[in-house]
Amino acid sequence: MNYSFAQRVSSLKPSAIREILKFTSAPGYIPFAAGNPSPEAFPTTIISEISNNILTNRPIDALQYSITEGYAPLRDHLTNYMKTKHDIGRDFDQILICSGAQQVMNLATMALCDPGDVIICENPSFIGSLNAFRCMEQKLVGVDMEEDGMNLEMLEKCIKENPSCKFIYTIPNFQNPSGITMSLEKRKKLYRLAKENNILILEDNPYGDIRIGGENLPSIKSFDQDGIVIYAGTFSKVLAPGIRVGYAIAPRQIISKMVVCKQTSDVHTNIWGQLLCHEFMTKYDYEAHLENNRNIYREKANHMLDLLDKYIGGRISFTRPEGGLFIWCTLPDSVDMLDFCKALLDKKVAVVPGNAFTMKDTDKTQSFRINFSTPTNEQLELGCKILGETADIFIK
Amino acid sequence: MNYSFAQRVSSLKPSAIREILKFTSAPGYIPFAAGNPSPEAFPTTIISEISNNILTNRPIDALQYSITEGYAPLRDHLTNYMKTKHDIGRDFDQILICSGAQQVMNLATMALCDPGDVIICENPSFIGSLNAFRCMEQKLVGVDMEEDGMNLEMLEKCIKENPSCKFIYTIPNFQNPSGITMSLEKRKKLYRLAKENNILILEDNPYGDIRIGGENLPSIKSFDQDGIVIYAGTFSKVLAPGIRVGYAIAPRQIISKMVVCKQTSDVHTNIWGQLLCHEFMTKYDYEAHLENNRNIYREKANHMLDLLDKYIGGRISFTRPEGGLFIWCTLPDSVDMLDFCKALLDKKVAVVPGNAFTMKDTDKTQSFRINFSTPTNEQLELGCKILGETADIFIK
Repeated sequence: MNYSFAQRVSSLKPSAIREILKFTSAPGYIPFAAGNPSPEAFPTTIISEISNNILTNRPIDALQYSITEGYAPLRDHLTNYMKTKHDIGRDFDQILICSGAQQVMNLATMALCDPGDVIICENPSFIGSLNAFRCMEQKLVGVDMEEDGMNLEMLEKCIKENPSCKFIYTIPNFQNPSGITMSLEKRKKLYRLAKENNILILEDNPYGDIRIGGENLPSIKSFDQDGIVIYAGTFSKVLAPGIRVGYAIAPRQIISKMVVCKQTSDVHTNIWGQLLCHEFMTKYDYEAHLENNRNIYREKANHMLDLLDKYIGGRISFTRPEGGLFIWCTLPDSVDMLDFCKALLDKKVAVVPGNAFTMKDTDKTQSFRINFSTPTNEQLELGCKILGETADIFIK
Repeated sequence: MNYSFAQRVSSLKPSAIREILKFTSAPGYIPFAAGNPSPEAFPTTIISEISNNILTNRPIDALQYSITEGYAPLRDHLTNYMKTKHDIGRDFDQILICSGAQQVMNLATMALCDPGDVIICENPSFIGSLNAFRCMEQKLVGVDMEEDGMNLEMLEKCIKENPSCKFIYTIPNFQNPSGITMSLEKRKKLYRLAKENNILILEDNPYGDIRIGGENLPSIKSFDQDGIVIYAGTFSKVLAPGIRVGYAIAPRQIISKMVVCKQTSDVHTNIWGQLLCHEFMTKYDYEAHLENNRNIYREKANHMLDLLDKYIGGRISFTRPEGGLFIWCTLPDSVDMLDFCKALLDKKVAVVPGNAFTMKDTDKTQSFRINFSTPTNEQLELGCKILGETADIFIK
């Protein structure tokens, strides 16, 4: 049979990047292309203890159907926690537990956007979110990144040129892939611009809790007196990603539409994972766990940065992120970035070519993304050495 | 701010049924409206044992990111199991692990259907699937049910009248809500009709493993030599629904598009649940567990049917399903069905009005759905008694 697919998926074509990405998790490769949290950061003993406890004492709670909005005690606790700790959430807001933060992007787009609508994104930005928008047939308009976040003049121009823009998508903390943190001033200006132009903001903050340097900055959602920000959080980077538990905090009118969409998508998020998050936050020292994770990531990041200084310093520029999992490397203009990535791949080092993160994968970029949380220390050492050897060949 | 929502959700309006459905899981109500598997059927001890084992011996496997297609050993085992036991799956097919069977409906629609396309459904049919189709802006065309399944003359007419039909959605075994099982003859004819007209079939089989009477019948997918059937299965009714693990078996071209959509929806299904299913199927006596579950459901169903005979027999007709979780009751034409359901609600018995399952909720129906798996035996007794007392008032 000749299958006829929906417009939304038939436009997705194989690309040069995808051919490279195939190898990013292949065995035998040094996983600089990965985006996995460090397994050392998973509180495995506590998770095991909580889970045994739940499955012994109240197994049905973890196994029966639950409600779409999420496990009520987790929703209540998170609401209070985010309000108290981060000043996130007003009376007009509600919380929705999602199957990872990825589902927040998916549901927000489902609820708000018709095909052909525009979403303004940081350029480059997280490929998973961009694909969620593309899969709902959104037109992506990119705003260049500067050292302190989006170029706001360019953002203003994009807003004027795209009146059908539904929301601005941003990762203010240690952005994936660029590692850039948006300044407080730009956060405030971005909020003001969105408000003046009647556009929503989708603020994605997967890494906020693993800041390894610099000063904490308030989230854009914490300014939200007007009900224009959808905030996406997740337990993937602070507890474990395999449990697939994230959440959205947004005005209740928006959440109620997202609930309708979630009901038709997966009924509810797996309840075992939700119980786990709730018990972990309420019965254990959650703040101590976060601090411990920050120490793990700080050490890994610094280790890789030292190695990069040693092997590619002065030849390939790279960010020194204040958190997150990634370092963004930029080659001199004389080097063909895709050729460079392919040469690394030949030496069994997988990195992500920068155009995986641009609005169109044909966009020109000299950058590539590397990750410090997944590789072992030995892999970090060997991979950075190979980076240096490859630079020897490409950069005269 | 005045929010502007996507067309797909802004058309969803509050309805009379929804007002009743609000009460279906309210505390203090007898839950005849529920659709939960019986907690007695959950193998809690084994699940606890498996989970403890995994979290003690290989916690990272259960906690780290995994691949979108699903846990490879589960995919392999299920592929062999479904082929060997049910003759489901050919060389051109692939399996995709989903976050419950609900996600199969969501992803199949995302992959195959543009807004305005037609999906032909049994009328009545499962509200969760209908809403998944509606949320992707599909036009639903209903085919009336007869005692042995869809009216195939009407189906043929619907196919002719709707050339933009992408697939026919069917639940052949103990259909939700009607309890009807499609005859072997109709299964074969339905397959032939779909093939002749170049239309796919989405076969949803959540209850196949809990047959409590009659003869096993081959699935429509087992006839599929042509790559035209998408089969949806789930562990929700045989293991536990809270874990959110289901699966699709379909031609690889279709699965590959569904994978793209799933990647943007929730990255992957929670991996703990997938490991659980795999260990349960491979290290324990899965067939004995299914047999035990069938005994539990047979007993519950027979108990409710006896009570219905006693309290409403001869006045309200009802199905005697060969499996599943539901009994479909039909009132005489003289009775206003919604008034009857409201009267039951006043007496704290929640049932689902039949028009929750019709193509439009304004469609006329005399039926309502009741469930025998969720209520306790005491609730079954009391609820059926109240059904009888209400019939005394409405049916002279």
